[in-house]
Amino acid sequence: MLQQKKETQIPLTRYRLGKPFVTGAVALGESNFSCETLSHLQVFTSEKQADGTVVLSRTMTRDTEIFGLGQTMGNVNKRGARYRMYAIDDFQHTPEKESLYGSHPFFIWKSKSEVFGIFVDYPGEVIFDVGFSDCNKLTITIATANLDVYFLQGSSLKNVTKNFLQLVGKPFLPPRWSFGYHQSRWGYVTQQDVEGIVAKFETHQIPLDAVYLDLDYMDDFKVFTISEERFPKFKNMISAFKTKGIRVAPIIDPGVKIEKGYEVYEQGMEQGFFITDKEGKPFQASVWPGLTHFPDFLNPKARAWWGSKYKMLHDMGIDGFWNDMNEPAIFYSPEGLEKSVKTLVDTTTKDKNLGIKFLFLVDEIKKSQNSRDDMKAMYHQTPSQGRVSQDLVHNLFGMKMAESVKEGYDSFAPDVRYHLLSRSTYIGQHRFSGMWTGDNASWWEHLKLNIQHMCSLGLCGFYYAGADIGGFSYDTSGELLTRWNQLAVYMPLFRNHSNLFCKQQEPWAFDSETLNHSRNSIRFRYALLPYLYSSYVEALESCEPPIRMLGFDFEEDARARSIEDQFLCGSSLLAAPIMVNQGRGRVVYLPQTHLHWNVESLEERSQLKVLPKGDHYVEAPLGASPLFLRENAILPLAEPGRNSDSFGPVMTVLGLVTDVATFTLHWDDGQSKSLKEKCQLKISVRRTKDSLSGHFETLAGQLKTLPWRSISFEIYGIDGNVQRFTKELV
Amino acid sequence: MLQQKKETQIPLTRYRLGKPFVTGAVALGESNFSCETLSHLQVFTSEKQADGTVVLSRTMTRDTEIFGLGQTMGNVNKRGARYRMYAIDDFQHTPEKESLYGSHPFFIWKSKSEVFGIFVDYPGEVIFDVGFSDCNKLTITIATANLDVYFLQGSSLKNVTKNFLQLVGKPFLPPRWSFGYHQSRWGYVTQQDVEGIVAKFETHQIPLDAVYLDLDYMDDFKVFTISEERFPKFKNMISAFKTKGIRVAPIIDPGVKIEKGYEVYEQGMEQGFFITDKEGKPFQASVWPGLTHFPDFLNPKARAWWGSKYKMLHDMGIDGFWNDMNEPAIFYSPEGLEKSVKTLVDTTTKDKNLGIKFLFLVDEIKKSQNSRDDMKAMYHQTPSQGRVSQDLVHNLFGMKMAESVKEGYDSFAPDVRYHLLSRSTYIGQHRFSGMWTGDNASWWEHLKLNIQHMCSLGLCGFYYAGADIGGFSYDTSGELLTRWNQLAVYMPLFRNHSNLFCKQQEPWAFDSETLNHSRNSIRFRYALLPYLYSSYVEALESCEPPIRMLGFDFEEDARARSIEDQFLCGSSLLAAPIMVNQGRGRVVYLPQTHLHWNVESLEERSQLKVLPKGDHYVEAPLGASPLFLRENAILPLAEPGRNSDSFGPVMTVLGLVTDVATFTLHWDDGQSKSLKEKCQLKISVRRTKDSLSGHFETLAGQLKTLPWRSISFEIYGIDGNVQRFTKELV
Repeated sequence: MLQQKKETQIPLTRYRLGKPFVTGAVALGESNFSCETLSHLQVFTSEKQADGTVVLSRTMTRDTEIFGLGQTMGNVNKRGARYRMYAIDDFQHTPEKESLYGSHPFFIWKSKSEVFGIFVDYPGEVIFDVGFSDCNKLTITIATANLDVYFLQGSSLKNVTKNFLQLVGKPFLPPRWSFGYHQSRWGYVTQQDVEGIVAKFETHQIPLDAVYLDLDYMDDFKVFTISEERFPKFKNMISAFKTKGIRVAPIIDPGVKIEKGYEVYEQGMEQGFFITDKEGKPFQASVWPGLTHFPDFLNPKARAWWGSKYKMLHDMGIDGFWNDMNEPAIFYSPEGLEKSVKTLVDTTTKDKNLGIKFLFLVDEIKKSQNSRDDMKAMYHQTPSQGRVSQDLVHNLFGMKMAESVKEGYDSFAPDVRYHLLSRSTYIGQHRFSGMWTGDNASWWEHLKLNIQHMCSLGLCGFYYAGADIGGFSYDTSGELLTRWNQLAVYMPLFRNHSNLFCKQQEPWAFDSETLNHSRNSIRFRYALLPYLYSSYVEALESCEPPIRMLGFDFEEDARARSIEDQFLCGSSLLAAPIMVNQGRGRVVYLPQTHLHWNVESLEERSQLKVLPKGDHYVEAPLGASPLFLRENAILPLAEPGRNSDSFGPVMTVLGLVTDVATFTLHWDDGQSKSLKEKCQLKISVRRTKDSLSGHFETLAGQLKTLPWRSISFEIYGIDGNVQRFTKELV
Repeated sequence: MLQQKKETQIPLTRYRLGKPFVTGAVALGESNFSCETLSHLQVFTSEKQADGTVVLSRTMTRDTEIFGLGQTMGNVNKRGARYRMYAIDDFQHTPEKESLYGSHPFFIWKSKSEVFGIFVDYPGEVIFDVGFSDCNKLTITIATANLDVYFLQGSSLKNVTKNFLQLVGKPFLPPRWSFGYHQSRWGYVTQQDVEGIVAKFETHQIPLDAVYLDLDYMDDFKVFTISEERFPKFKNMISAFKTKGIRVAPIIDPGVKIEKGYEVYEQGMEQGFFITDKEGKPFQASVWPGLTHFPDFLNPKARAWWGSKYKMLHDMGIDGFWNDMNEPAIFYSPEGLEKSVKTLVDTTTKDKNLGIKFLFLVDEIKKSQNSRDDMKAMYHQTPSQGRVSQDLVHNLFGMKMAESVKEGYDSFAPDVRYHLLSRSTYIGQHRFSGMWTGDNASWWEHLKLNIQHMCSLGLCGFYYAGADIGGFSYDTSGELLTRWNQLAVYMPLFRNHSNLFCKQQEPWAFDSETLNHSRNSIRFRYALLPYLYSSYVEALESCEPPIRMLGFDFEEDARARSIEDQFLCGSSLLAAPIMVNQGRGRVVYLPQTHLHWNVESLEERSQLKVLPKGDHYVEAPLGASPLFLRENAILPLAEPGRNSDSFGPVMTVLGLVTDVATFTLHWDDGQSKSLKEKCQLKISVRRTKDSLSGHFETLAGQLKTLPWRSISFEIYGIDGNVQRFTKELV
């Protein structure tokens, strides 16, 4: 009986302590797994501390590696540092930072003898000390004694990851245009600015799918309004862009300006939809619009109300959004700022001769920003546990805000796939939301962090993600942008974004070389788009992240597991971009035989070489980026057009085939949840002693819905010789 | 005639504009080079701008590399970023920072067709845009139209560097104990603390040469005082340590507390030795002791007075110092702070609803720290140009403070070699001062920066330098300390230093593994000490920096020039330490054949392997660090004792010899400028078809002054076989 049970269930157990808050992370019904009390958890010792926290701990063997933990600083192998799950808006992503915007308390323990997953489903503060204080000890400190710990047995990283996604659900599928090139900047202030940017893409013949609107499209930073002064013909602009296949994605901030007569404010007040303070009055804090109230996304009615607000934008033709400031970010509460100013005045008046005391004053004002005291002073109204302090459910704010979008679309446009980026995220949110990695910097170091984040986020279910290309803060050089483009062409979200205070960083904002390199990279992105889109769709089924560390596929190769500056993209590609200033080559580790293509432009495909497993130094002039195609893998390459709806009729299939290689192309209308015009085309290449042949097979749908009419095969053998032949798609 | 002139002169020309301030950087008399006006400079175009600045600019060819610029962020090849020579106390060494503590406006232009050096001898702000704004343009912006530009012709990096050191003078030779292991922390508050630390080194059997005193040894932060409360038997402590061979190095800050009756203050006031404000009154600003005045180091009389103050410490047995806060660092001037507080109060009182304005207030107090307005409000009294604004000679403050030490010792202890670290430095200061790289962080990224800084500083003449091992700010992990120790054993200054607010980071502050690894590294350092000391002495003659980039020795190897995470140490060694968290191996590029030693401990020397030129992946468990010994080079290794005065009688000479290898050991009493007991021992190993032999030859002095009685040769051949033999030193 027990055996039978195991076969139908996922091999996982939930261990519970106290009365956990239901986060919504878990999508699977309780009947599908075993439930125990935390004291029965074998693999970790758990202890309740005097201060109310609960500590789980375990000794790591020398060969133990820890993977996961989503959006945290540092390595993909998380050992050797400390991480704090407590969402925060902090734009300085320096290596010592323990918290960022998202909270993803799931990791995989990997040693020679064990592979298992641990998900600490707790919505407040959780600290992971992964061999930092003591190099051989992993300790997890949970803020209170109400939590669920899920233990996922497994035999491999793949296996644990797959089981985890059965628990928390599969990632959402954004529209196809989400996979195009996106341009953004806090600094496109007027309609003219935005139209000018779009026009420049046309002038420079660079494909484009979306342009983002930052704060300035709103009237006085009021969410769900549009500035008539700066965007006098907003609706016209949206539709004019749409005819060109260009989408607009406005920013959405949760802070609702306190202003009599402003509809969103009035409705929220009237219906009691705002987060309250200790006394039950709407909590006040300042963000972009000045003093605001925050919607209580944990209250289902408030969430539904907020979700319905997106309809106004949807009706104008907008189906893309980025939910920002949802940690929640707080500039200051009046009490907090008053306290800080008072401290400053008192100290400096009392003592004109401060010395060392001055150093403690320097950040006094900053203290009122994102203060934990403010989080503690905020209260949600929840269906399951009534009034709950924000601090205790802190990490859910971003997720529940995103859920409002999902629920909104479910009601007013149930078949429409929306594009949604959220800055703050929690486990489970990937079912209905994408994300970006927040306000990074124009630092070379953040290219590597981009890869590390994507690999760690993938393990936690966040497939649709990406970083701000070029870097959000500080001035970028043309070379940094060039290299970042070369890296980001593989990422699901490919968005160039920067802030008001730094140099412009659109492709043309530097010199002619940078413009050419950028155009080449973006065109290459569009060539890859069918591959990336298909790989994403495949990943939803296989639960193998589209972007992942080498160790995911080559788990028994310790060297592969240690690589932090290369990554796998889909089932065919390994990318090893250049990530250092003035780098003109690099060493790459190949865990098996690959075909090396130094991508300069889509069209330049001479000099491809077969390289065996091992270390190789490969040259890469500024315009070129090292890409590797696996043995017995093929890569479809489209002819890029203006955007993700426009491709030439010939699909090239590049391959390194010594036996059999297959790839399934997934295509559809790109915007419906019901996947209208869905077509699945299985392409295969087979080499025998005497022959090489290409095949295709329609697994679903009809060929005529595809934009391609023929496939041009370009297949390499182990000897490095290439054979070319074409097949009509009929 | 012209030809003859060239032979006796260095091939350099000074180009002058206006009336430059004499910085003291140049040590060579004017008769030794040609002098021209700036308009005659061919290699750069120069242009006076409307704002009074002068801009030098030149187009870089694609292959142009720029080396030098000393203590700046980023690559050894400086291309692709912007740097600002304007000394600042900024502890956040993030990649976008344009200025750090030191100002070293010298670089070498290297392209296929040209190698030359440019030294912009200007003591105020100089901005180098090295292909940042435009990837192919180098522009240098000098704040005013009074400057000297030295153009150094050359044929190689070596050649230009050597010529540069002829111009600015050779580096100073600190005492031998400067090359030992040093322990420091802002946080050893009492005599008991310091004695406890020293005792722990004995308990754990870790050699030690010096312990540093940070702020707390002083009475109320008053420079040149000693707290009787916290250090009741200061003098006894110094002498007790000295009998054990342990030196003490106190911090020296320039800010003199304003306090009636305090001798240094009274003397400075009486004699008018302080920097003045616009009206000629002593300038006031707050630093550690509260409100202070700053000595006017540019006034020779004030400098002499300050220099004489070190005698008090010298007389107690102290000959080591670290001059801190000499950018100069300013917490605030009363005017500056008042202005900031007023802005804060005004803004927050006027507007309770700040929104975006708040973000501009966050750093309002910080604005009063190290404010340029304050630098502009300070005045020096100089012999050459009378009253000069601090802003215009800003970068000389640290150098002139160090010069006071030199001048002091010249007068009261002319034959004593002092140990001196300065935080702020300018070109030329290397003649009489060492430096450390300031308040770095416990970031893995700062290991690479440590190498990059050392390589760039070496080109500018700063040979005696090093970074805070373990990192000054933020918590360190045992693994980070282990890897940093493994890197820093090769650096002239090997000091563990951290701050009051982070975890302790002495070798025993983690786990037993870290303690063992640290002990191994520090013992290895002492084994290397004769090599490092001799290499340093050799470098003073050869003008080839003891720590340098691979491209310095392998200039025609473009790959070698691009390596930023390996370095050469002396004439025999190439080091490729592990610099990433959880790294257990790495790829190393060898520009020629080397012997690979994975250093775990001094004694563990099995499994040494000969590796040919090229890329190699080498394993390195946490306790091991990859080291490479050149073909036809030898490495003397001593038996470590308690400190730099105590070695066992056997010197091991490890070698990879296929023909002839030599190394000259330099030894002396370790403390006198006159190099008492000087002995130079030339060791050589020769391999012929049939035989392998070791030789020694006394080039100077007497063998009996050396601590070694025999040499144990351990010589590898190209086949990886080792031969061992011993020679008595008689």
